[in-house]
Amino acid sequence: METDANELRRVIGAAAEAAPKIAESTPAERATWLRAAADALDAAADELIPLAAKETHLPEAPRLRGELARTTFQLRLFGEVLTDGAFLRATVDHADPRWPMGPRPDIRRTVVPIGPALVFAASNFPFAFSVAGGDTASALAAGCPVVLKAHPGHPGLSTRTGEVLREALIAAGAPAGIFDVIHGVEPGVTALKDPRIAAAAFTGSVPGGRALFDIAVSRPAPIPFYGELGSVNPVVVTPGAVKVRGAEVVKGYVGSFTLGTGQFCTKPGLLFLPEGHGLGDALRDAAGAAPGQPMLNERIAGGFTHDLARLRDQPSVTVLASGDPDGDLFRPTLLTVRGEDFRQAGEVLRNECFGPSSIVVTYAGQGELLKLLDELEPGLTATVHAEETEAEDVRVLLPALTRLAGRLLWNDWPTGVTVSWAQQHGGPYPATTAPTTTSVGTAAIERFLRPVAFQGFPDALLPPALREANPWQLPRRVDGNRS
Amino acid sequence: METDANELRRVIGAAAEAAPKIAESTPAERATWLRAAADALDAAADELIPLAAKETHLPEAPRLRGELARTTFQLRLFGEVLTDGAFLRATVDHADPRWPMGPRPDIRRTVVPIGPALVFAASNFPFAFSVAGGDTASALAAGCPVVLKAHPGHPGLSTRTGEVLREALIAAGAPAGIFDVIHGVEPGVTALKDPRIAAAAFTGSVPGGRALFDIAVSRPAPIPFYGELGSVNPVVVTPGAVKVRGAEVVKGYVGSFTLGTGQFCTKPGLLFLPEGHGLGDALRDAAGAAPGQPMLNERIAGGFTHDLARLRDQPSVTVLASGDPDGDLFRPTLLTVRGEDFRQAGEVLRNECFGPSSIVVTYAGQGELLKLLDELEPGLTATVHAEETEAEDVRVLLPALTRLAGRLLWNDWPTGVTVSWAQQHGGPYPATTAPTTTSVGTAAIERFLRPVAFQGFPDALLPPALREANPWQLPRRVDGNRS
Repeated sequence: METDANELRRVIGAAAEAAPKIAESTPAERATWLRAAADALDAAADELIPLAAKETHLPEAPRLRGELARTTFQLRLFGEVLTDGAFLRATVDHADPRWPMGPRPDIRRTVVPIGPALVFAASNFPFAFSVAGGDTASALAAGCPVVLKAHPGHPGLSTRTGEVLREALIAAGAPAGIFDVIHGVEPGVTALKDPRIAAAAFTGSVPGGRALFDIAVSRPAPIPFYGELGSVNPVVVTPGAVKVRGAEVVKGYVGSFTLGTGQFCTKPGLLFLPEGHGLGDALRDAAGAAPGQPMLNERIAGGFTHDLARLRDQPSVTVLASGDPDGDLFRPTLLTVRGEDFRQAGEVLRNECFGPSSIVVTYAGQGELLKLLDELEPGLTATVHAEETEAEDVRVLLPALTRLAGRLLWNDWPTGVTVSWAQQHGGPYPATTAPTTTSVGTAAIERFLRPVAFQGFPDALLPPALREANPWQLPRRVDGNRS
Repeated sequence: METDANELRRVIGAAAEAAPKIAESTPAERATWLRAAADALDAAADELIPLAAKETHLPEAPRLRGELARTTFQLRLFGEVLTDGAFLRATVDHADPRWPMGPRPDIRRTVVPIGPALVFAASNFPFAFSVAGGDTASALAAGCPVVLKAHPGHPGLSTRTGEVLREALIAAGAPAGIFDVIHGVEPGVTALKDPRIAAAAFTGSVPGGRALFDIAVSRPAPIPFYGELGSVNPVVVTPGAVKVRGAEVVKGYVGSFTLGTGQFCTKPGLLFLPEGHGLGDALRDAAGAAPGQPMLNERIAGGFTHDLARLRDQPSVTVLASGDPDGDLFRPTLLTVRGEDFRQAGEVLRNECFGPSSIVVTYAGQGELLKLLDELEPGLTATVHAEETEAEDVRVLLPALTRLAGRLLWNDWPTGVTVSWAQQHGGPYPATTAPTTTSVGTAAIERFLRPVAFQGFPDALLPPALREANPWQLPRRVDGNRS
């Protein structure tokens, strides 16, 4: 299933033609489109969810039902962002002959859609990070047409979700060309090189994301590439937390690293426990008791098997629980290694391993823990399990943890990424290729907006966001003062 | 004059060591540092300005005095940004068990400094876009140490400005390592490849900026590269403006394209006049009457002479005023070409020509004007000179102009870029390599900030910006509501 050259041309041409029309829509209109899309997807749940389950082997309930609910909530939340209006960042500086650096002209700044966006869907969230997922929702909210490159892991679902989404948007009044789905690696690359594509977003592996990033930045005119790639998501457990609630930590940890058969970008891949933690049996038992689960597809299962073998081959690594697969069902594998050996093993133990495995690293004290953290690559999350009485010990760790991730968690687990105003899903490379942005939460819209200033324009020619009377009653900064 | 390998190692090492210390400073502390730096630079004016004049051939007054005033104003304005606090984008979402997509944890988001920044200084603004210029000011305000790669066009000024700036910052309490200057192409490239450098900024030519961008994105861990490259800055003049105030337009145009010997990134390189405009003699006279001025240095003068010869060689181009150089003094060259011929000549006439020249392109009507605009590359600015009675004609042009630039001007000239809250200095490639950002104005700080979310943290361990009591009294969004 691959989009042919003619169809690809048609899709990109239609997106380019739609872009200026969508740019003229009001935020209120786009909010209506997004809500209509959410309603249509909810209405199609009983068709889409079984299709997703068939293609991804993920359970219908609660997983896929919950994921679709998250997806449609996300579309509606971007509707709220549009209604709120702060995303327009309207800023007005009136002319000021006494501006200290010299007379200031009247200058007013807001944002406009960046242009047609190309979104590469992920394998592991067939709804929330796929066709109608966060990248699509935020780009549409920004006023950009979206060309969606489907993930080959769920092609039928992608096509059908795309149809429901597109029809709902157009029925709600959006221009034709606002959204379409393409299939195939080569068509995706061709689209990424097309001069009419103004930005791209991606969720997936480091090698795949890096290859596409390299293409995006090598174009004659490079474009922003918002790639969410890899993350090991370290979790630090303090001596106090081990002592007070070690069993609870073990349970939470195994639940988190096996969730979705370990196929989450926020899977805790490393658990740092103090030496002599005494939780070995509990870890072994909990991991051993976890049921086998299918992986998304054979390619991902093969990659996991290969990567896991490399980890187990490390002489310094001890196997706590050996999750040998039972047919297509994968049981969790839990490894452990001493901090010193972890440091010496180099990157093999530090890379993300996509699937149901994790490594317990023991540390000799806070000094060694800091060294271990300093040598990790950045990622999406970093977590601490500690007692409040240990706050001062944790404070010392915070700079290292902040360097490591875009989201820090206290006594919680990184899997499960809420969609809200304060969410941050990103981080320095290789977590993302764009560390100043987020791909989840309301701020994700900013990736698809470009600022434009208007100097000295007559009121009638200004965008409504910048007119003197503030007809949309937006929050604005006027002459430096927030309203 | 080139920084040797040992010194380069020391500078980058000191910056990396300073980064976590600066990250712990409060915005109020950093505001103090910036104000102290501004005061010290103002106090050194009588030493720095003659040094700048000697190395750049720019006139001391009003140009260099004005530019230094702009530079110190800019440092103080970022102090205001820090005091204002909105740049922290503090966002608080309390835990909400009834959040529609499923229970929401307590999650709070703010920004942290991205890390050591490498800034490549420009040739043409030895103060405002150089050592203590906008990139440095915004990176320091964000809390990032700065390694400044000096422009070879003013090495002595760069060294001396760097000393004044660094000493003032440190005397005001900033950590050693917060700022230093390096010299030389190779040291600049070595620094750009150093894994401790977290972001880079650049102002200069398309080939130079693209080469550095390519290095930044090819690193094992790519970093954001904020390059402000090239721009032709088209100006459209309507029939009404020609009729009502043609002479005034001509005067403004020649003044703008010859300002600073045409060595502004916002120089109007193309003036679109309606056919039969009748301003030929006025243009010829105004350009012919403009005095000769020196260029910044021989390399730039040589590049200009070469590029200009290519333009003049186009058979369809007519010379309105031939600014043959008088020794080291360059007089303006003004060319003209019919719209149809301009379209056929391809990119040679569309590229930026850095120096005192410009091209008048005549258009047959609005249809041809739109085609001409649609075929231009994006840039920093696009300008319209029109009568208010022509508003509806201009409205039709606005989508094309918005696609072309980050700043649109009405009845004004693009040279002269005020520093304010609403300023936008950027645009799609090749104007910049980062079209969602600005390099002038208060929003420039965002380039050096990275969002971090804190999930479930005890209040005492949160950054002050996110604590429940809002100790800094910041504007925040709490549970979706703006305060």
